[in-house]
Amino acid sequence: MDNIKNYVGQNKDRFINELIELLKIPSVSADSAYSQDVINTADAVKASLEKAGCDHVEICETPGYPIVYGEKIIDKNLPTILVYGHYDVQPADPVELWTSPPFEPVIKKTDLHPEGAIFARGACDDKGQMYMHVKALEYMVQSNSLPCNVKFMIEGEEEVGSPSLAWFVERNQDKLANDVILISDTGMISNTQPSITTGLRGLSYVEVEVTGPNRDLHSGLYGGAVANPINVLAKMIAQLHDENNHITIPGFYDKVEELTRDERDEMAKAPFSLDAYKQALDIQDVYGEATYTTNERNSIRPTLDVNGIWGGYTGEGAKTVIASKAYAKISMRLVPAQDWNEITELFTRHFTSLAPKGVRVKVTPHHGGQAYVTPIDSVGYKAAALAYEESFGIKPIPVRSGGSIPIVALFEKELKSKTIMMGFGLDSDAIHSPNEHFGIFNYLKGIETIPLFYKHFTELSK
Amino acid sequence: MDNIKNYVGQNKDRFINELIELLKIPSVSADSAYSQDVINTADAVKASLEKAGCDHVEICETPGYPIVYGEKIIDKNLPTILVYGHYDVQPADPVELWTSPPFEPVIKKTDLHPEGAIFARGACDDKGQMYMHVKALEYMVQSNSLPCNVKFMIEGEEEVGSPSLAWFVERNQDKLANDVILISDTGMISNTQPSITTGLRGLSYVEVEVTGPNRDLHSGLYGGAVANPINVLAKMIAQLHDENNHITIPGFYDKVEELTRDERDEMAKAPFSLDAYKQALDIQDVYGEATYTTNERNSIRPTLDVNGIWGGYTGEGAKTVIASKAYAKISMRLVPAQDWNEITELFTRHFTSLAPKGVRVKVTPHHGGQAYVTPIDSVGYKAAALAYEESFGIKPIPVRSGGSIPIVALFEKELKSKTIMMGFGLDSDAIHSPNEHFGIFNYLKGIETIPLFYKHFTELSK
Repeated sequence: MDNIKNYVGQNKDRFINELIELLKIPSVSADSAYSQDVINTADAVKASLEKAGCDHVEICETPGYPIVYGEKIIDKNLPTILVYGHYDVQPADPVELWTSPPFEPVIKKTDLHPEGAIFARGACDDKGQMYMHVKALEYMVQSNSLPCNVKFMIEGEEEVGSPSLAWFVERNQDKLANDVILISDTGMISNTQPSITTGLRGLSYVEVEVTGPNRDLHSGLYGGAVANPINVLAKMIAQLHDENNHITIPGFYDKVEELTRDERDEMAKAPFSLDAYKQALDIQDVYGEATYTTNERNSIRPTLDVNGIWGGYTGEGAKTVIASKAYAKISMRLVPAQDWNEITELFTRHFTSLAPKGVRVKVTPHHGGQAYVTPIDSVGYKAAALAYEESFGIKPIPVRSGGSIPIVALFEKELKSKTIMMGFGLDSDAIHSPNEHFGIFNYLKGIETIPLFYKHFTELSK
Repeated sequence: MDNIKNYVGQNKDRFINELIELLKIPSVSADSAYSQDVINTADAVKASLEKAGCDHVEICETPGYPIVYGEKIIDKNLPTILVYGHYDVQPADPVELWTSPPFEPVIKKTDLHPEGAIFARGACDDKGQMYMHVKALEYMVQSNSLPCNVKFMIEGEEEVGSPSLAWFVERNQDKLANDVILISDTGMISNTQPSITTGLRGLSYVEVEVTGPNRDLHSGLYGGAVANPINVLAKMIAQLHDENNHITIPGFYDKVEELTRDERDEMAKAPFSLDAYKQALDIQDVYGEATYTTNERNSIRPTLDVNGIWGGYTGEGAKTVIASKAYAKISMRLVPAQDWNEITELFTRHFTSLAPKGVRVKVTPHHGGQAYVTPIDSVGYKAAALAYEESFGIKPIPVRSGGSIPIVALFEKELKSKTIMMGFGLDSDAIHSPNEHFGIFNYLKGIETIPLFYKHFTELSK
C-alpha cells in the first residue's frame, strides 16, 4: 500500500497531464462530425497501453469504431482480469452552459473536490476512470508486483449503445477469456463512503416521429381544424404516465421483480439527504413514481424519460405555423428480468395506438441493453470490497445504480464471467451534463485501489 | 373594364418582373439577421409608389421597422381610400422543404394555377397582394381615371404582430384620415368563386419555459426521481384541451358569441369538399372541437396551437439526458369579444397552475391582436362586392377567415373607419409554409379588380 501511495505521489503531475492530453480529443461517438477524433483517441489509448507495459496491443476493427485490445500474460495458470472501458464521450451540448470549453480541460476546486477536479467532457465518463486502470498497470509493471494476467478491451461506442461490441465479443471468446471483468464506469456514494455497484438498469432508447399535414400550415387558416403534430405528440407523451407516475404501457411491469421490505430497508441505510439532493439540483421538490423513495425510483424501478423533443418554429420571434412533423427521443430505464427488445415492442405498439386518425406515427428503435445484478458473495465482489476497505479505511456499501452499461449482461452471457463495477466518480460530477468533472482525489485514489483488487482477487482465487 | 384589361395585358410581363424583384429581398422581420434587407425593402416600396404616381411618398421612422406612406390627393371633397399592406415576410424555414430557394422567385404551373404561379416567400403574403394596389394606381394615373384620393400605409412588422403600427397610427390620425381602409392580405374561395373576408380572428402568442433541475442530468442516475421538464411540458400542453378538444383555460369561452343555427347554415353554403381538403393535406381525417364543422373550427371558434417546441438533445444519435429546460411557442386564435390581453392573462394563470412543484414556469407574451367583424351593408362592402362581380362575373360570398390581421380592430378604433378585405390569394397558396406561391391569374385579376372598387366606392359615396 505504501509503495503505490509513494509511486502515485511521485508521478501525480504526470498522471494528470497524460489524462488531460487524452481529454483534449473530442471523441464524440454520437456525432459523425467527430469520427476522425474518435479514431485518433483509439490510437492514443493504444500508445498508452504499450507505454504502461502491455506485451501486446492492437487496434481491432469492427463494423463501427475500433476496439483497443491489450494484454499482459505472465502465467497461464494465474487468474486473468479483463478490464473494460470506453474512450468515446457524450456530446458536449448545450455547449453554452459550460463554464470552460468542454475539450480544453482545466483544474478547478469545488466544495466536494477541495483538492481540485479536472473539468472536461469525458473526465469521469469514462476516459478518467478508464485511464486509472492504465496507470495502475504501469505501477504494477514498474514495481514488478503484477500478481496475475490482465487484458484490456477499450471500446469507442459505449455512448451510442455499443452496437459493435457484441459482434466483437462473439468473435473473440478465446482472446477475451477471463476469470473476472473489471469496469470503472460507475460512481460511489462519497469520497468518505465508497460503494460498489451491484446492479445496473437496462435501457431501451427510441425516436418517435409524428406526421400530420403534408406541409407546414398557417395556424390561422388551419388552426383548430387539423391535428397539430406537436399538440398530438404532447398528448401522447403525457399518456405514457398515469397520475401516480406509473408507466401506462400494457405489460411494461409484468416482469418487474418487487423487492422485499427487508431489501428496501437495507437499501434505505445508504446515507442520503433529500434536502441536500434538492438543493444541489435547485428544485423545490422531487417527482416520481408514487410509493417509492428517490433512491428506489432511480435504481430498482423502471422509468421513462423524454431526452429530446423538437418541432415547428424554434427560432427567434414568432411564427404562426402548424408544423407538418414533430419528433421526440424517448428512453426507458429497465430493471432485471425486463427484456429490452420486448419492452421496445410493447412501447411501439402502445405509442402507435395512442395516435388519433389525423396523424401518422413512426417509432425507430435506437439501441438498448439488459439490466444486470451481480451477487455480493462472489470472489470478485469480495476482492473489490477488501480493496476499497484497505484503500479508504472503511467498508464499501453495495448499491444498485440507475445507470446502464448495456454490455455487462452480454459479457456474462458470452464470456461466462461476473463483472465487478468499481466506480470512483461521484453523482455530482455532472457526467452527460455541461461542466463534467472528475476529482483529482478520486482519480489518484482509483489508481491506488485497483492494484489492491488485483492482489486480493489473485489470493482469493487460489 | 376593357381599358384596364388591355393595360394589364400590355404590361403583364413588366408587372410580373417588378414583383419578382421585390420578392428577391429577404425581408424577414422575425429574424434580426435580415434587418438590413427589411429596410431595403421599404426603400423599394417607396420607389415603386413614386413611380406609380403618388404625389408624396415618405419613409416614416418608428420604434421598429419603418412604415412607407404615400398619397395622391386629387380633390379634398372626394372620398379617400387608405390602402394598408406589409412588405415584411414570414421566416422561410424549414428551408429544406422548398423545391426552389425562397428568395429566388420562379414561375411554375400547378393544378390550381394552370397559367402559372410565382413561387417565393411573400409572393402572396403580402408583397404580391400589396403590389397589386401599386400597379392599380399606376393604371388609374396613366389612364387618368383615378376617381378619388388614395393613401398608402405599408408596414414592415406585420409578421411579428405590428408592434410599431399602433404607435404610428395614434400619432398620425390626420395624415391617415380616410373614408375606408382597403386591405388585400386574405384569400378567396377559388378563382371562379370570389369571396370577401368579413371576419378575422384575434391572436395571443406566448412563449413558455419550463425549468427543472439547474443542469442537464444523466437520465440513468436521475431518471424517475426528478421532474423531467420535457415530460412535464408535454403533460401541461396536453391538459390545455379536454377529450372534446375544448380549451380548458377557465374563462376562455366566457365572451365567445355562439352563432345562431341560421348563421351557421348560411356559412355551410360556401362550397367545400372535406375529401378534397383531406386529400390536399394528405391526412386520413380532420381533428378538432367536437360538434363543429371544419369551416366553423377554423373561423368562428377560438383555438390553441403549439407553433414550436424544443428541449433536450435534438442532434444526431442518442443522448441519455434529462434536460434542465424545455420550451414551447403557443398561439391562440380568438373570436370577436375575446380580448387578447385578458386571454393572455387567463392562459398565463392557468398554464402556471398546471406545473408540479418540481419545476418553475415562465410565460412570456409575444404579441396579440383583437378579432374583427365587418358589416356587409356598408358602402365599402357593397363597392367591393360590385367590383368582384364586374370583374369575375359572379357575386362574391362573405366569409369569416381564421387568420388574424391584428391591426384591423385598431384601425376602426383609432381611425373610425371600416376595413374592407379584398383578398385574391387561395388557401392552397401555402402562405407561412414552404413553397408559398401566388397565381399569375390572381395577381393580374387583382390589379384589374381594384380600380373597380375605387369607381364603385366613389359613386356609392356620393
